[in-house]
Amino acid sequence: MIRYGEIFLKSEPVKRRFISMMVKNIGLTLEAEGLSHRIEAPRGRILIFGDEPGRIAEVAARTFGVVGASICTVTTADIPGISAAAEERAERCILPGESFAVRARRSGVKGFSSQELAAAVGSAILNRIPEATVDLTTPDCEIFVEAREFGGLVYDEVIRGPGGLPYGTQGEVMGLLSAGIDSPVASWLMMRRGCLMVHVHMRGGRFGGADMEGTVLRHHARLSAWISAHPLDLLVVDMEPFFEAITALEEPRYRCILCKRFMLRVAGILARERGAHALVNGDNLGQVASQTLANLAVVAPAASIPVLRPLIGFDKEEIVERARAIGTFEAQPGDIGCAIAPRHPSVAAPATTIAQIEEKIGVDDLAVRAAGTVRRYRAKNGVIEGEAQTPGFGVSPPGRSHRG
Amino acid sequence: MIRYGEIFLKSEPVKRRFISMMVKNIGLTLEAEGLSHRIEAPRGRILIFGDEPGRIAEVAARTFGVVGASICTVTTADIPGISAAAEERAERCILPGESFAVRARRSGVKGFSSQELAAAVGSAILNRIPEATVDLTTPDCEIFVEAREFGGLVYDEVIRGPGGLPYGTQGEVMGLLSAGIDSPVASWLMMRRGCLMVHVHMRGGRFGGADMEGTVLRHHARLSAWISAHPLDLLVVDMEPFFEAITALEEPRYRCILCKRFMLRVAGILARERGAHALVNGDNLGQVASQTLANLAVVAPAASIPVLRPLIGFDKEEIVERARAIGTFEAQPGDIGCAIAPRHPSVAAPATTIAQIEEKIGVDDLAVRAAGTVRRYRAKNGVIEGEAQTPGFGVSPPGRSHRG
Repeated sequence: MIRYGEIFLKSEPVKRRFISMMVKNIGLTLEAEGLSHRIEAPRGRILIFGDEPGRIAEVAARTFGVVGASICTVTTADIPGISAAAEERAERCILPGESFAVRARRSGVKGFSSQELAAAVGSAILNRIPEATVDLTTPDCEIFVEAREFGGLVYDEVIRGPGGLPYGTQGEVMGLLSAGIDSPVASWLMMRRGCLMVHVHMRGGRFGGADMEGTVLRHHARLSAWISAHPLDLLVVDMEPFFEAITALEEPRYRCILCKRFMLRVAGILARERGAHALVNGDNLGQVASQTLANLAVVAPAASIPVLRPLIGFDKEEIVERARAIGTFEAQPGDIGCAIAPRHPSVAAPATTIAQIEEKIGVDDLAVRAAGTVRRYRAKNGVIEGEAQTPGFGVSPPGRSHRG
Repeated sequence: MIRYGEIFLKSEPVKRRFISMMVKNIGLTLEAEGLSHRIEAPRGRILIFGDEPGRIAEVAARTFGVVGASICTVTTADIPGISAAAEERAERCILPGESFAVRARRSGVKGFSSQELAAAVGSAILNRIPEATVDLTTPDCEIFVEAREFGGLVYDEVIRGPGGLPYGTQGEVMGLLSAGIDSPVASWLMMRRGCLMVHVHMRGGRFGGADMEGTVLRHHARLSAWISAHPLDLLVVDMEPFFEAITALEEPRYRCILCKRFMLRVAGILARERGAHALVNGDNLGQVASQTLANLAVVAPAASIPVLRPLIGFDKEEIVERARAIGTFEAQPGDIGCAIAPRHPSVAAPATTIAQIEEKIGVDDLAVRAAGTVRRYRAKNGVIEGEAQTPGFGVSPPGRSHRG
């Protein structure tokens, strides 16, 4: 049995659309895992029937939109039916000397209140196991019972899901992956809000750190495991010509700003080509020099569409905690980051100076050319499916290693 | 003793600046609470001395930047000194039959490792309380010991702080308060990241819900309690003339979009006047009709400066949880929200249509006029200090109630 949360707040037609998307996502995920099943979506709950309830619950509980998954006994929606199943479950769940509590819900069923249901089930359990004690605040074991239009449900465990909205209910956004800890978490949060995601990585080539592209591919693959029903694309853009242009400049202090502006500019071009509505990045206020408010205000206008920064108000500790839970907390092997970052980056770059430099290096032309170098990696179910080259990538000079 | 987190990651000069700001904030807060104290900031920790350590720790633990606060015994930085204090504390803390663990840190002190310190303190405690047992994974009682350049620290409890960066280290942003649950949480998150905050509320007047301004004032006051060292301003803008203009239009579907664009436009004017770098709002993707990706992309360009949306990737449940912790979870009394929201708001408003409507109603002129109606409320320590009228508010027609 699958419980969802926020979707309850939606209007009836939106709710129906969201639930049918979630049912489809769960179904495709279970198929991908080779788990035979049948799904029903009566009012208020999603029910999955199959021969391996343990694995089904575990796999389904990773689906966006799911708040909790439980292995249930389905009964008739009356007190005798529910009580009988609850007694059986209690015998397996409550160990000698342990306390228990009955948690009851009732929806669309008449004739008794949820309190009456809880009391009746509680005394039935005490009848069967006289040595058990009731403790409503910190019980050793919880027995959940629900009386609903479609029947009764009895369970004793809830596997927490990620919550959020079903993947695919919110239109496409483009998430920038940098090989750091933050950007995969930002992407995951927007996927969890239902956004169709496409990733983009700006490849530094000989100017980037060691094997950043490998780290990005691993992050990308792991994020794809959260939406195993759907393929997830990563576009890799060649930034070398741009880096050549800015390292030829005398002043190194604005490199980070110029680089971030360029990345948003190129991502904006690619996003518009695909009809994506917004960019998503891992910006976290005050974490590094390019993430001051003043620099943010200089960087932001380079994007032709809105930039979503889901981590802007997070603490680093909270980001790390999330990354661990998501499975993308991977320390960059060897050098992290960027080989051309200046020792003293500007924390407040003047917009006019930036505009002059960009005109000098011909930024519009560089951006269009960079957007033409895209390579695409498709991931599904946590695995990179293979590279689909698009024309244009061949312009990158041969013989250069992509390791820094 | 005050422990901070993320600030550790900063370069030496930035760290010094952040710590001195935090020390100043803590000092002013303790003063405001009438708690006499003396603050020192040796390497790695902040120490506060005073006669009421319990209240001092509690008050200091609410300061942004603080990860944890503990009531400590300060000793010499050697094993005998630390052990003696730890034994005393253990006698008070470990009850009969309870287990304990020693958690040791060492920084800048030579002659023993942190493991050796933990082992020595542990056996000293076992000597004094032979019936106590050691349990490193789930102890009933934890004894923390630290050997640092400036001395030894012994404590047995940590009051969790909010984390983040010290208030005032990040420049000014303008947070829009709506009277809902989300916007105060968004504002709090950016204050916690060190942003100087100024609030703005767009007053609907007879078009708004019942007593929205009262709710906003309470949210504003409560948020000010988190930065009791600093005053917090709320600007209230009169939106009635704008609402008159859009309710006169035939098509109601775009009202929410037009309204959100207008609010960002006016807030952008006010923010630029004050030199604020960004706007902050409670946007949460997919929560309501105006928060679809398509509408976000239409609304965002109305702001002349970046819009930060710290809740964009949150779940409603997570927002509610935060609001409770912050103290701003207050249900709107009576009607919530807006009296003119259409029954079927557009989820994908076309940008060109919006531009035509805005030209028709003379939006630029309306925005400048609205920005001229600002009333200011200053809050400090959780209390509204009184209203400072600025000229121009008198243009609002007299005799109209601001209740819906």
